[in-house]
Amino acid sequence: MEVLVPFSTDRPKSRLSAVLDPDERRAFARAMLRDVLDAVRAAGGEPRVLATGPVEADLGCPVDVDERPLTDAVNATLDARTGGDDEGDDGDEGDDEERSAPVAVVMADLALATPEALRELFAAGREADVAIAPGRGGGTNAFVASHPAFRVDYHGASYLDHRRIAAEAGLSVEVVDSHRLATDVDEPADLAELLIHAEADDDERRAASWLRDAGFALDTSDGRVGVERE
Amino acid sequence: MEVLVPFSTDRPKSRLSAVLDPDERRAFARAMLRDVLDAVRAAGGEPRVLATGPVEADLGCPVDVDERPLTDAVNATLDARTGGDDEGDDGDEGDDEERSAPVAVVMADLALATPEALRELFAAGREADVAIAPGRGGGTNAFVASHPAFRVDYHGASYLDHRRIAAEAGLSVEVVDSHRLATDVDEPADLAELLIHAEADDDERRAASWLRDAGFALDTSDGRVGVERE
Repeated sequence: MEVLVPFSTDRPKSRLSAVLDPDERRAFARAMLRDVLDAVRAAGGEPRVLATGPVEADLGCPVDVDERPLTDAVNATLDARTGGDDEGDDGDEGDDEERSAPVAVVMADLALATPEALRELFAAGREADVAIAPGRGGGTNAFVASHPAFRVDYHGASYLDHRRIAAEAGLSVEVVDSHRLATDVDEPADLAELLIHAEADDDERRAASWLRDAGFALDTSDGRVGVERE
Repeated sequence: MEVLVPFSTDRPKSRLSAVLDPDERRAFARAMLRDVLDAVRAAGGEPRVLATGPVEADLGCPVDVDERPLTDAVNATLDARTGGDDEGDDGDEGDDEERSAPVAVVMADLALATPEALRELFAAGREADVAIAPGRGGGTNAFVASHPAFRVDYHGASYLDHRRIAAEAGLSVEVVDSHRLATDVDEPADLAELLIHAEADDDERRAASWLRDAGFALDTSDGRVGVERE
């Protein structure tokens, strides 16, 4: 299955600016991207990065550069892959014969994503017209679509919008219930989540290693689990 | 499978005090408890509430009152059910023949828990000595144990402690990757999570209905999803 991984090369991870400087955020975002690409490959997917600008590194997969906002760039790719366009679909909503080969879109900051969780997503996407892994906070962290009537809109609570778009087009939907896919690493609290699961699973992937090398460690001193930096 | 649901009758949900007064927190906690009990029953479990004090309501299941801290109360029940005690286990670590009928412990604030997610947990708990559904932030939101060598310690990052306790006793462990089981409703941001999934699934369970009746609604005005109260 082709798996698009959108990646922002300009000012990535700005919500981590309280704990990481711009160069660090760039390096950490790159480490997460590589982990996601590895997990996609281990799950049998064929990753393709959809970047907002050139990526100066060999990621081991194709990189498409599209400077448009995420929603437009992903919809253009869905148009090309599922064969749809905005004008011609209305008469054929939910028609099984319309289905194309499924294409997946997996965010580059899903640093906790495991091959198992992605395999579950891909399997759900082979069954239903649309499979969605909602993110904490109502985002759409990953999905698989195989029907030309599905389009994305990443503004606001995109998970609710995507459920509505699929329902209005009469598409079958599978929701993938995964904490690992629900956790996009955006904020300092998410760094704790990454370190917790890395420690629990003795997982030496890049993003967690990068954090540890940068001096981050779990901090349980006030009863809740956060991160501290030495 | 017997499923213990620990429930605090004194000052429940204090971290919601910024948005709910004490009576409201008590009513909301009760609504979540009832939803969890329903989900447990729908998943084939036999719930039993383990409360810190008397519960003045018919919950449709047995209620045991144990005033001790959560860790002590749960360990006492594990002792009684899995047949273990702290003195006698050391020579028999990880021994399959030691396994008892599995007992589950599911927190009362898992208001997003579905029968599907719980069925997955229970199935994992029949396979492994211990099955754990980690919570966001390193807690242990639900587990199933069938071996006398497993004991709980809910202080700090209990998920890491429980993995360690199981590993040191040579027990097999299954980790259940579920966003719904990872989401304990503790803080205002968790209310948004509850409303998002209730809306997405057109789910009219008690806790979400209670929130809506109390005037809470999703608020996406600042680009992120939160709750507002009218």
